[in-house]
Amino acid sequence: MKRLAILGSTGSIGQSTLSIVEQYPDRYSVATLAAGRNLDEAFAQAVRWRPRLVSLATADLADQLDVRLHQAGINGIETVHGTAGTVACSTHADADFVVSAIVGVAGLEATHAAILAGKPVGLANKECMVAAGEILTQAARERNVPILPIDSEHNAVHQCLRVGAHAEVKHIWLTASGGPFRQLPLDQFASITPEQALKHPTWVMGRRITIDSATMLNKGLEIIEACRLFDVAPSQVRVTVHPQSTVHSLVEYVDGSILAQISVTDMRLPILYALAFPERPASTLTFDLAALRHLDFEPPDFERFPCLRLAYEAAEKGGVHCIALNAADEIAVEAFLDRKISFMAIPRTIEKVLASTPEAHPATIAEVLAADRDARRIAHELLA
Amino acid sequence: MKRLAILGSTGSIGQSTLSIVEQYPDRYSVATLAAGRNLDEAFAQAVRWRPRLVSLATADLADQLDVRLHQAGINGIETVHGTAGTVACSTHADADFVVSAIVGVAGLEATHAAILAGKPVGLANKECMVAAGEILTQAARERNVPILPIDSEHNAVHQCLRVGAHAEVKHIWLTASGGPFRQLPLDQFASITPEQALKHPTWVMGRRITIDSATMLNKGLEIIEACRLFDVAPSQVRVTVHPQSTVHSLVEYVDGSILAQISVTDMRLPILYALAFPERPASTLTFDLAALRHLDFEPPDFERFPCLRLAYEAAEKGGVHCIALNAADEIAVEAFLDRKISFMAIPRTIEKVLASTPEAHPATIAEVLAADRDARRIAHELLA
Repeated sequence: MKRLAILGSTGSIGQSTLSIVEQYPDRYSVATLAAGRNLDEAFAQAVRWRPRLVSLATADLADQLDVRLHQAGINGIETVHGTAGTVACSTHADADFVVSAIVGVAGLEATHAAILAGKPVGLANKECMVAAGEILTQAARERNVPILPIDSEHNAVHQCLRVGAHAEVKHIWLTASGGPFRQLPLDQFASITPEQALKHPTWVMGRRITIDSATMLNKGLEIIEACRLFDVAPSQVRVTVHPQSTVHSLVEYVDGSILAQISVTDMRLPILYALAFPERPASTLTFDLAALRHLDFEPPDFERFPCLRLAYEAAEKGGVHCIALNAADEIAVEAFLDRKISFMAIPRTIEKVLASTPEAHPATIAEVLAADRDARRIAHELLA
Repeated sequence: MKRLAILGSTGSIGQSTLSIVEQYPDRYSVATLAAGRNLDEAFAQAVRWRPRLVSLATADLADQLDVRLHQAGINGIETVHGTAGTVACSTHADADFVVSAIVGVAGLEATHAAILAGKPVGLANKECMVAAGEILTQAARERNVPILPIDSEHNAVHQCLRVGAHAEVKHIWLTASGGPFRQLPLDQFASITPEQALKHPTWVMGRRITIDSATMLNKGLEIIEACRLFDVAPSQVRVTVHPQSTVHSLVEYVDGSILAQISVTDMRLPILYALAFPERPASTLTFDLAALRHLDFEPPDFERFPCLRLAYEAAEKGGVHCIALNAADEIAVEAFLDRKISFMAIPRTIEKVLASTPEAHPATIAEVLAADRDARRIAHELLA
C-alpha cells in the first residue's frame, strides 16, 4: 500500500490522482491533501479519503474546514495552511509518495522539502522543474529519490528511456499538438483573440497552459523540463509537431533506434505510471491501435512561435533565465487574457524581460523565489 | 571483443553482419564462418577475416577452398562441410556469439547445438523458430542463453519489451508493409504473376520471402515466431498494416501504454542491436525524424490474405502444424514461381497440407526434421 501526499488535490491532476486511488484501493491510500481555496471540495475530499492532514491556502479557510469536519462528527484530521501547511503535507511521516500538482511556483518549497525528506515525487508541476530544476534534481540525485514526471510528454520520455543507457541517448523528441494556430497565416497572428487562443485542439486544460500551448511557450517550458529531468543538453531536445497527440514523445538513441510511446490522451495514465513505477497495473485506459489510421508530423515553425526560440535560449543560459521565462510569460498571458496586450506581444514581453535579466544561478529555493519576484516586477513594469 | 560464428556468411544477413564487424573492429571479430555453395565469396571472406574454421555445403567445396587457401599461402584455417561442419562452426570454442542466418531448416541443428553449448544466438532464421521454437526456447531457458532476434519486427518487439515486465504485456503488434497487393482488388488476385509478386514495396529480399510478403504468410510465420520468442499466446499477437515500414513493431502494455520502435529499413541495425545488446553503439544508421511526415496504419484483410488465418490456426495448434505451415508454403511458393500453380493456390495448398497433418509435438530436432520432410512430401503429392 502506497500512501500518497497529494499537493493540489482539488485541481485537475489532484482529482485525477484521487480517481486512480479510487480505482486501485489495494494499491493506494491518501495520507495528506494540500488544497488551495476550494473549501467545499477540500471538505468533500477529507470526508471521502480521511487523510491525516489537510492544508488550505489560508488560516481562515483551515479554520472553516476544521469547524465543518467537527460538525460532521469527523475527528482525527488535522488542518494546516499556507506554505508551511503544504510542506507539512509533503513531508508527513505517513506519506510514501508525493504527487506535486500545485500550479506555479507555489508548490516549489513543498516539492523540495519532499525530496529532502527522501520521498519519491510524481511531478505534474512544470514550473518547479523550470524554475528550480537544477536544485531539485541535484537534491534528488544526492538522496537517490526518484522524480517521476506526470505529464504526457515527459512521462512518455521516461518510458522510452528505459530501453537504453543515458549515454546512449542522442535526442529527446517532444511532440507538440501545434495548438490552435498551427496553420493560421502568420499575418493573422496580430489579431488573435483570447477566445480563439483558449480553444485547444486536443487537450482540455487550465487557461494559462492553454494560451501557452497556443504560443508554444508550453513546449518551451517542457524543453527546459526535459533538460533538467533527464540531464541532457538543450541541443539534445527537439520538437516535432504532431497534431493528433497520439505519440506522446520519442527518444532517439545513438545506434539509430527511436522509441515512441503511444496512448490515449488522458492524464490518468501518466499518473498511474508514476504511482506504480516500475510496475504497470492493468487499466481501462486502452488505446485502440486497430482503429489507428494516420499519424502526422511536421517541424515546428520558429517564425510563428518565437517562444520556442526564447525557451532554447533560456535553457542554454539556465538559472534565472529559465525562471524569468516562466514568470514573464505568466504575467504576459494574464495581460493578454485581460486584453491589455496582443498575442504576439507575449513573446515580445518575455524577450524584453529576458534581456533585462543578468545571468545568475540561484543555489537555494529562496533565491529562486526572489528571482521569480524580480522577473514578475520587470514584466509588470514593462507592461505598465 | 566478441568473436562471432556467422552461419550463412555469404547470404544477405551474413554479409551485413560482416559489414558491422568491419565498422566496429574493436568490438567484433570473426571466429568461424559457415557458408553454402558460394566458393568464391567464402574464399574472399576467409582471406579477409581469417576465421579459425570455414564450413561449406559439400566435402568437394571444402576441399577446393582448402586448395585455394593453400595456394594463397594462407594457413591455419580449417575447412569442414555439411551439417556437421555448420555445427562445428556454431559450437567452436572460440565463438562467443552465433549469428544464425542460414535460410530454411538447414540452420536448425547448428542453432540448437549453439544453444546447448551455451552460446548466445542472434537469430535471423525465421524457420528455426517456427519449426522448432518450443525446443529451442526451452533449451535457451534451461541454459539461460539469450536469443536475440535479427529481423526488424522482432528486434523492435525485443526493444519495446524492455519497458515493462512479461506479465504486463497485453499485445504484441507486428507491423506489415502489406506487400505489393495491399490495394489490389480481390478479383484480380487469381491472375497475379510471379513478376508482380516479386516486387516488394519497401524491402529488397530473397525470392521466397518476397512471395511470402505478398501472401502475408511471412507475417504469419512472424506471428508464430513472436509466440515462441516472447512466450505469448497467438491471441496476444496482432498485425497492423503499415505501408511505410517505419514503425517496425509495437508492444501494448496492460496499463494502456504502447511502445513503438522506429528506424531506417536497414538490416544492419537489428544485427548491431543483437550483437551489442544490452549496449547501443553509435551508428550512422540514422532515421531523420525531422523529415517524417506521415505514418499510415490499417487492419490486415483476412479475405485477401488467408495465409494470416492459416498461421493463427497453426500457431494455436503448435508443434507439427507450424512445421507443416512453413514446409508446405516453401513447396507451394516454388510451384508458383515455376508457374505451376496460381497465387491463390499457395494458401489453398497450405490449408490442404495442414488438414492432412495430425496434431503432434516433436520433442527433438530429428523429429522436427522428419515432420518437415513429411509435410513437404504431402505438399509435393498434392501438387503433382
